[in-house]
Amino acid sequence: MAPSFVPNGGFAAGKVAPTSVTGRLTSVYSEVQNSRIDYELPLPSVLQRPFKIVDGPRSSAAGNADEIAKLFPHLFGQPSAMLVPSETETLPSDQKLKIGVVLSGGQAPGGHNVISGIFDYLQQRTKGSILYGFRGGPAGIMKCKYVELNSDYIYPYRNQGGFDMICSGRDKIETPEQFKQAEETARKLDLDGLVVIGGDDSNTNACLLAENFRSKNMKTQVLGCPKTIDGDLKCKEVPTSFGFDTACKIYAEMIGNVMIDARSTGKYYHFVRLMGRAASHITLECALQTHPNITVIGEEVAAKKLTLKNVTDYIVDVICKRAQVNYNYGVILIPEGLIDFIPEVQQLIAELNEILAHEIVDEGGLWKKKLTDQSLKLFEFLPQAIQEQLMLERDPHGNVQVAKIETEKMLIQMVETELEKRKQEGTYKFEFKGQSHFFGYEGRCGLPTNFDAMYCYALGYGAGVLLHSGKTGLISSVGNLSAPVEEWTVGGTALTSMMDVERRHGKFKPVIKKAMVELEGAPFKKFASLRDDWALNNRYISPGPIQFKGPGADAANHTLLLELGARC
Amino acid sequence: MAPSFVPNGGFAAGKVAPTSVTGRLTSVYSEVQNSRIDYELPLPSVLQRPFKIVDGPRSSAAGNADEIAKLFPHLFGQPSAMLVPSETETLPSDQKLKIGVVLSGGQAPGGHNVISGIFDYLQQRTKGSILYGFRGGPAGIMKCKYVELNSDYIYPYRNQGGFDMICSGRDKIETPEQFKQAEETARKLDLDGLVVIGGDDSNTNACLLAENFRSKNMKTQVLGCPKTIDGDLKCKEVPTSFGFDTACKIYAEMIGNVMIDARSTGKYYHFVRLMGRAASHITLECALQTHPNITVIGEEVAAKKLTLKNVTDYIVDVICKRAQVNYNYGVILIPEGLIDFIPEVQQLIAELNEILAHEIVDEGGLWKKKLTDQSLKLFEFLPQAIQEQLMLERDPHGNVQVAKIETEKMLIQMVETELEKRKQEGTYKFEFKGQSHFFGYEGRCGLPTNFDAMYCYALGYGAGVLLHSGKTGLISSVGNLSAPVEEWTVGGTALTSMMDVERRHGKFKPVIKKAMVELEGAPFKKFASLRDDWALNNRYISPGPIQFKGPGADAANHTLLLELGARC
Repeated sequence: MAPSFVPNGGFAAGKVAPTSVTGRLTSVYSEVQNSRIDYELPLPSVLQRPFKIVDGPRSSAAGNADEIAKLFPHLFGQPSAMLVPSETETLPSDQKLKIGVVLSGGQAPGGHNVISGIFDYLQQRTKGSILYGFRGGPAGIMKCKYVELNSDYIYPYRNQGGFDMICSGRDKIETPEQFKQAEETARKLDLDGLVVIGGDDSNTNACLLAENFRSKNMKTQVLGCPKTIDGDLKCKEVPTSFGFDTACKIYAEMIGNVMIDARSTGKYYHFVRLMGRAASHITLECALQTHPNITVIGEEVAAKKLTLKNVTDYIVDVICKRAQVNYNYGVILIPEGLIDFIPEVQQLIAELNEILAHEIVDEGGLWKKKLTDQSLKLFEFLPQAIQEQLMLERDPHGNVQVAKIETEKMLIQMVETELEKRKQEGTYKFEFKGQSHFFGYEGRCGLPTNFDAMYCYALGYGAGVLLHSGKTGLISSVGNLSAPVEEWTVGGTALTSMMDVERRHGKFKPVIKKAMVELEGAPFKKFASLRDDWALNNRYISPGPIQFKGPGADAANHTLLLELGARC
Repeated sequence: MAPSFVPNGGFAAGKVAPTSVTGRLTSVYSEVQNSRIDYELPLPSVLQRPFKIVDGPRSSAAGNADEIAKLFPHLFGQPSAMLVPSETETLPSDQKLKIGVVLSGGQAPGGHNVISGIFDYLQQRTKGSILYGFRGGPAGIMKCKYVELNSDYIYPYRNQGGFDMICSGRDKIETPEQFKQAEETARKLDLDGLVVIGGDDSNTNACLLAENFRSKNMKTQVLGCPKTIDGDLKCKEVPTSFGFDTACKIYAEMIGNVMIDARSTGKYYHFVRLMGRAASHITLECALQTHPNITVIGEEVAAKKLTLKNVTDYIVDVICKRAQVNYNYGVILIPEGLIDFIPEVQQLIAELNEILAHEIVDEGGLWKKKLTDQSLKLFEFLPQAIQEQLMLERDPHGNVQVAKIETEKMLIQMVETELEKRKQEGTYKFEFKGQSHFFGYEGRCGLPTNFDAMYCYALGYGAGVLLHSGKTGLISSVGNLSAPVEEWTVGGTALTSMMDVERRHGKFKPVIKKAMVELEGAPFKKFASLRDDWALNNRYISPGPIQFKGPGADAANHTLLLELGARC
């Protein structure tokens, strides 16, 4: 059935795989990609034998339960569901389901495996079922743009990175018309269920859809799946979002290489900006994996209300101390969203947004008089390139595009300036050379690690179970992740239980709050207890390229294991 | 004897390896690093059994043989040496050698294995020999800064990336005083031999040292070893320089990930600048490994005398053609040294260097009148950020630092401008979004691939043989690299045979000419025959992370195999 994939790494001639409807099949697979396709995915043992679903107690919300109850009258209070072993099969084996699946938002390694997991469940437990993949994200639901997924179609994407099987998109189903369109699609395809694979916003959206379908007495159940490399969608029942593990390991390989480079050359400070705008989980995890000299965690900067000058001084102090022991090199990690965490910068940006929206920015700089004293001082303190970036780059809503601000270059310049000052004062007398890096896109679409491959497959397979058992408004939840796969738990968590409300334009809107780095959490505390040692002594670790076989190939990341109480 | 290395990937507690004199031992090794230390390196079979050394015919030079003969009166004409199986051992087993080794210039994965190879040869075949590692590059020779290498010292660096075992440096031994210092060190340490691990310049230097020692009747032999990730030090007898294989595979992993990202997102053109200033080998190899939509090869740009406008138009034409088939995304590879290959840019830079050295650059721009018409036109055509980079960044010799010019961003801006024009004309009507990347330092210090690990070990072990047999002025040469390791050939090539002269300040200076991408060579021809297909159809390949075990883990790179006539 499955098309044969010709390995390319062996450099045999005539390697192009047979053309088909999918994009993948027009290309040749590398040897590693090929070898991954048939990587066998173990399932948690509860999924390998007869099971039944046990509901937990009535759930509440993460905050403002009354408001959440009002927003989700049909779903609020739903219990979480957990699979437990059973003597006999408890779900009807003759049921044929029609299920849709959609990928929402930015890519994360493992998305294809979630779809494979759903598909395999349907094939194995509800023979004759149909799985539709909506193309290009939620827009595909609204426009009823879909493809029917079958074995041949899915096969080349197994254990592969990217979202290109059905592609993704950033549209949202928000307005009454859009909900209407989604209803029409669900009715047209006679959908029993829909799985939304996405981040916090998309899962909130999934829950609104579930509520909407339920309120209209439609049979279409809606489930969510936790996706984001940023790692900021998690709670007790959903210990991690998929993709985080792979992305961090890819970045950590690069950081580890740069560390060896730094030590060999002995003359560069490498400033590495890492993806992750809202939360600094990626930066923290990469620090735990590689032991850089300096790591800036946005949440700590915000909690301590640090200024940009404070952050610069901290870096400069470490550089000066290292110079005293003849280390004129180092590696520094910075989260992409750093400047968003700095109160004074947020204030400046807010003022700039206001000015740019309403004033003429004259070349002479008279417009600067509109800034408050504090913001003007900060603005003048910033390197010119950053001033320009703050003035120029606006998204369609008139906001600064933080991801485009090259924070690592900004910090290099600010550190240079400060070190120059200290040279004048006689407290530093070395040559400082900064090298800037941004590790971003190359981490989003890598081949999923064994952990992400297995985790995603279990998430998808578990979603199949939840659909089969009639659940809606849950997020697929796989737990006990520090144990071997066989012992992982499988179930679903009420999406409403993860929600709080935010007031926007005078209305309450439900949100799943982004999980930020907890300064009292085990990962940060471990980092905080070691960073002074890492700063002055070189404790670099180079994880090297991700290995798919051999010792350690299955191990999860530090953040997850520490949060789960494992020693690592 | 060897210190035990505690794996860290398993996250066991108390993992710090025992402290010792080496920097490495203050840090913890990752599981992959640990597993690499004991990776067993097969030797070519000629080195496993008794061998003898057979000299080839008298050699000449790569050009201007008469001048080379004058510059190297004692060495010119030396034959190449080749090891062949023999009935009995032909080298004295009771000889004790004192050998020095030095790493010169930028890092390349595998350097530590060259040193391990030399060390193991000395241990196994000339018991009681001593190996000194000069610290910090050639300066270590001049200042007699060294460390005596022993098993414990070397052990943690086996099959590891970086040059930090003894570190490297960019100093050169050039002046009579510096040669004097080198002589003094050789006499002080009673050196029988010295191995210089470096690029074209360092190997030229090694030959000058060999000539100098010989001319003074000193016993110290000097050998070279071909190192550079850029891949531009090679000839028939030296098929590749070490480090190229690993660096390209690291970059290709990242490019492959970005390709999947491009295809999944469907809206970005990724412009990837790759290390390799003088020659475009890295870019070409990465193209052969990943099949990007557009690849710019500097040597072709130079041969066809293309302008920056030509290059921009080529890219824009492909973007427009792809838009017609609804591909509004793609991946574009650019060599770091691109602008060095463009005649008009070289002219502009030369004029700017002249102006900046002698004129006052006024803000009003009157200085521009000193530019020729053509250069002025080009300067005005460049994006402002690039204009600024061209004006500001000068190295100590007053030259533009090409590596600091963000060519990928420059091209994005130029492509944007041209597409805007075509939009006005109505020949393009889509949204163009460029994303820039520079893959550089993270490739120089990765864990060597199996190929580089084995190749370097053979280079070092072979250097040991050449030293033992009294050779000087040769570069260690391992050949037949498309065959399994067992069949690799081992020998040495006369460094003078690789040389030509350049006239500098009225004097002839010997140089090993950088090996550029040959437009008639097999790698470029294969690329050229496929690029139109790659441009419009997506033939992306994602090599994935380097695997150290499993199928294909030992395969060399496309460039090398194609140059050797292998089908791939």
